[in-house]
Amino acid sequence: MATDAMSPKITVELLRQLRQAMKNSKYITEPIQAYIIPSGDAHQSEYIAPCDCRREFICGFNGSAGTAIVTEQHAALWTDGRYFLQASQQMDNNWTLMKMGLKETPSQEDWLISVLPENSKVGVDPWIIAADQWKNMSKALSSAGHSLVAVQDNLIDAIWEDRPARPSTKLIALGLKYTGLTWQDKITALRGKMAERKISWFVVTALDEIAWLFNLRGSDIEYNPVFFTYAIISIRNIRLFVDSKRLLDPVVREHLELDSPSKPELTIQCFPYESVYTELQAVCAALAHKDKMWICDKASCALTQVIPKAHRSAIPYTPLCLAKAVKNPTEIQGMKMAHIKDAVALCELFAWLEKEIPKGTVTEISAADKAEELRSQQKDFVGLSFPTISSVGPNGAIIHYRPLPETNRTLSLNEVYLIDSGAQYLDGTTDVTRTVHFGTPSDYEKECFTYVLKGHIAVSAAVFPNGTKGHLLDSFARAALWDSGLDYLHGTGHGVGCFLNVHEGPCGISYKTFADEPLEAGMIVSDEPGYYEDGSFGIRIENVVLVIPAKTKYNYRNRGSLTFEPLTLVPIQLKMINTDLLTQKERDWVNDYHKKCRETVGAELERQGRKEALDWLIRETQPIV
Amino acid sequence: MATDAMSPKITVELLRQLRQAMKNSKYITEPIQAYIIPSGDAHQSEYIAPCDCRREFICGFNGSAGTAIVTEQHAALWTDGRYFLQASQQMDNNWTLMKMGLKETPSQEDWLISVLPENSKVGVDPWIIAADQWKNMSKALSSAGHSLVAVQDNLIDAIWEDRPARPSTKLIALGLKYTGLTWQDKITALRGKMAERKISWFVVTALDEIAWLFNLRGSDIEYNPVFFTYAIISIRNIRLFVDSKRLLDPVVREHLELDSPSKPELTIQCFPYESVYTELQAVCAALAHKDKMWICDKASCALTQVIPKAHRSAIPYTPLCLAKAVKNPTEIQGMKMAHIKDAVALCELFAWLEKEIPKGTVTEISAADKAEELRSQQKDFVGLSFPTISSVGPNGAIIHYRPLPETNRTLSLNEVYLIDSGAQYLDGTTDVTRTVHFGTPSDYEKECFTYVLKGHIAVSAAVFPNGTKGHLLDSFARAALWDSGLDYLHGTGHGVGCFLNVHEGPCGISYKTFADEPLEAGMIVSDEPGYYEDGSFGIRIENVVLVIPAKTKYNYRNRGSLTFEPLTLVPIQLKMINTDLLTQKERDWVNDYHKKCRETVGAELERQGRKEALDWLIRETQPIV
Repeated sequence: MATDAMSPKITVELLRQLRQAMKNSKYITEPIQAYIIPSGDAHQSEYIAPCDCRREFICGFNGSAGTAIVTEQHAALWTDGRYFLQASQQMDNNWTLMKMGLKETPSQEDWLISVLPENSKVGVDPWIIAADQWKNMSKALSSAGHSLVAVQDNLIDAIWEDRPARPSTKLIALGLKYTGLTWQDKITALRGKMAERKISWFVVTALDEIAWLFNLRGSDIEYNPVFFTYAIISIRNIRLFVDSKRLLDPVVREHLELDSPSKPELTIQCFPYESVYTELQAVCAALAHKDKMWICDKASCALTQVIPKAHRSAIPYTPLCLAKAVKNPTEIQGMKMAHIKDAVALCELFAWLEKEIPKGTVTEISAADKAEELRSQQKDFVGLSFPTISSVGPNGAIIHYRPLPETNRTLSLNEVYLIDSGAQYLDGTTDVTRTVHFGTPSDYEKECFTYVLKGHIAVSAAVFPNGTKGHLLDSFARAALWDSGLDYLHGTGHGVGCFLNVHEGPCGISYKTFADEPLEAGMIVSDEPGYYEDGSFGIRIENVVLVIPAKTKYNYRNRGSLTFEPLTLVPIQLKMINTDLLTQKERDWVNDYHKKCRETVGAELERQGRKEALDWLIRETQPIV
Repeated sequence: MATDAMSPKITVELLRQLRQAMKNSKYITEPIQAYIIPSGDAHQSEYIAPCDCRREFICGFNGSAGTAIVTEQHAALWTDGRYFLQASQQMDNNWTLMKMGLKETPSQEDWLISVLPENSKVGVDPWIIAADQWKNMSKALSSAGHSLVAVQDNLIDAIWEDRPARPSTKLIALGLKYTGLTWQDKITALRGKMAERKISWFVVTALDEIAWLFNLRGSDIEYNPVFFTYAIISIRNIRLFVDSKRLLDPVVREHLELDSPSKPELTIQCFPYESVYTELQAVCAALAHKDKMWICDKASCALTQVIPKAHRSAIPYTPLCLAKAVKNPTEIQGMKMAHIKDAVALCELFAWLEKEIPKGTVTEISAADKAEELRSQQKDFVGLSFPTISSVGPNGAIIHYRPLPETNRTLSLNEVYLIDSGAQYLDGTTDVTRTVHFGTPSDYEKECFTYVLKGHIAVSAAVFPNGTKGHLLDSFARAALWDSGLDYLHGTGHGVGCFLNVHEGPCGISYKTFADEPLEAGMIVSDEPGYYEDGSFGIRIENVVLVIPAKTKYNYRNRGSLTFEPLTLVPIQLKMINTDLLTQKERDWVNDYHKKCRETVGAELERQGRKEALDWLIRETQPIV
């Protein structure tokens, strides 16, 4: 696919057409002087379906985060440190790359104000901008004499000739064995929280929240087992908006009790996906004086503005987001099983790579394909959880690299290899990064790897009070790098769903403190510090870890303490470690971790009769002395 | 003074009077159902003059932070972890203590909503509530059907019979030798920043910002060398609002060039302090269409609302706040000198305490008095920078304790002694805490002390990239405590002024991330982790530290690195350290620090001929092996 390429997309003609549309009375009443193209879909999803890849269509950059803005004279794209290199390679010179996080980079608002003529109108599709972003942007523009206007017809769709259709894939109903809780129990718990806060309605727009709530999965968006839907829940009613064809499946009908509801308040009323706007209008028209309606402030501006201000209670994250983040015992057990299976596949992969690489035939793409093949042999495998980052040497420094035929390098004995990959299984979601060398790493590569490992361990072994927010742990991951003047330009960890999105809120481990909820036992996050030397190599060590209670010598104010248990059980390459740089405590951590990998994954490899991988595992988990 | 006592203030009659005033048409058009009494003055100062101690007057609690709210039925006070014990001791049972930071504690807004009858009016004096707090409170109350109303007559003043007068002390003009920059140069630099952001006016309300800008000091507020004033600066004009009597002093007139201004745009127009409101109204009435006016969002609601929204540019901290935070070479040199003199006084104090304590005659109060006496012998001493915290045994666990006759304990060989004290010198401000034992500390006391020391060192020796915000360093101070299940309920550090307020913004080291600006070379903050065992002892180790460039092995993206240089040079008691718990790096830090104390302070002790203190210093700075 041309837009996937690392060569720039030619956008002269597209920009000309878009600028015409910005003045075309067919779409807008008055011409607009700028048009904002956000990254997400109407659900503010991070990963999106092809029909929603509007920002990629207009500028060529296909990373997971970024906003494009086109004015009559300029075209600019804002993205973060993970994507600087990739964006600069994918965009032609009609585009200016705005590197977010650098001091000299203007915000979108400041930039617009600096380039726009007086009294300008800035347009945006209200369905794909979040309400809080709309508010901030609108305020900033107004203060400078401009205005933000909602353009109902999406102008990218207007010029996108062969835009793909919105997917409507088969739904999977998950039983108690996987979910631990019925959707009816989840609805009841949710209503309890609504009653506690005197909320009578709740508009749910995040796809993973609805999938989790109803114990349903889909495959509308690649890698994310979700489906296009909305829900409006009240104390007595449940309205589900989804393509009606999907509800013909008898298994789904049975699961949702569509034909024989057990109780009136657990009866699901189904509506077409597209009717959410008019149905919400109808609900709002009938609200009682004191009725309050929850909606996330990250929901679309279009839906948010349907709710009259007096009834709207905008929240930074929803109770479903938090409930979903704290995994129940069944989900935790499932995640553990998924990670053992995933480790089996990776042990096989590394054993295979060791044998094959000297032949000179393994490439980034073929290694990624092999990883997928080995994972697919495991029980309850559904698909990958994100595009595999399989990168050799300088490609490893592109943080969210994805190998393509044009960029594909051959694995060798001379360069560092970084593979960040994961899968969806019916019982859980995985996400693991290992950085390895199949020959002899340089002292500098080992030194950097060891700093990253020290950071990984510092987070993984951290003990912290109940109620601590993840951002307070971020610096632990960086201290060893900082000491030597090094750093990495991404957060240290993200929440991970259970057979759901590999990135989920509301907790994480990042220097960004936005909407960061306290860590609780049962939450699952990644721990993935890195170091990237542009043009040379990339290093990242990532485990998925479970928040668990910690035993401590004392217990200040009876608050209790937490720590992490690694769920990922794949050896960390000893060859890459300069053990002189480790403290005794860090050496003990590595040895304990490898012992656990050997015992747990070893037993499963034995059970599956995968002898070569078992030998590899045993060799790679020898204790450091 | 009765309100200073640790026995509760009897408030039955005062609350009755206040509740009457809340219904009295003399003060308000319609009765209010609740009245908020914030902690600050019209400048949102942390330390306040006696005439502004309204919250203390109504409830008895005299800590530096806290908000009282009185309704028809209830009276409640919100304060933070530093003050839980003190507030509970100073308030009678008409008051409910709301412990901020605990999960179960409602916010002021939530509490008001839960106790108020429908459609209530909540009153507050708009001069002593910050604009941003007004906005949040008003929004929350409106959303629940109530309203926040500005009560122009302060209801506490209305019932406060012998309220003291507002002070108007002599002004001190500081020359270049102390400030490094003339006020004219500071005005010019400020105007440069205003021009950069297209701002034509700036309303300055923070007392320390105006004192810094004009190189003037006063003593209107105890411990803080500031004076009651406002300023309104434009590209061409300077309006200074200050009691006109103070400007009769010829030195001040000369300093401000009041009688012979060098340039028209550096001519200061003087107005009475009280006329700021009407003068600002006049300025606003004459604003041109595009004129923008800066005001800090922490300025009073009263003044903020004078500025029409279209002209108002509310900023979270002002350019003066930031300029003041980055000390120039003259200020840095002054701060270093002040800390050496301060260390001389403290070495003498500790040598004296060692001799006197066995006699059983030294108390918390007499030790504090001795510290002040010794400091006052040093050159350019002006006064203390905050009330000395001199606390023995269980009193040490009251984080902002101040010894009073009723609570005064005798120093002994059996209990831990914590002294947190500092002074104002013409060349700088100091703030230092040492925790010592004059007999034999218990293993547990030593263990806790050593964890706190490890935290202190972790911050002080931290290396971090340019642009890092202080909150990202806070966890370094806690990691050793957390590991053992311990913690402390206050931030790790605050900005320190140069012969100005001992607490200043916009940077600090705290788990609170609010308005936290990146650390830069030249900034000065405190590093003061602690541990407090209620009813038993308190530990805190505090140095004032200067942000300096760090030399690192590598330099990622040429960002440069920073670290800290301790300005405080007072030995840390070796007897309290369990050296087995220190790493070699930590032992080296202690030895290097003590070597510097010995060399730098030793030379000054020698110069001043203070032999006993020198002997003490030499003994206390022996290296750990």
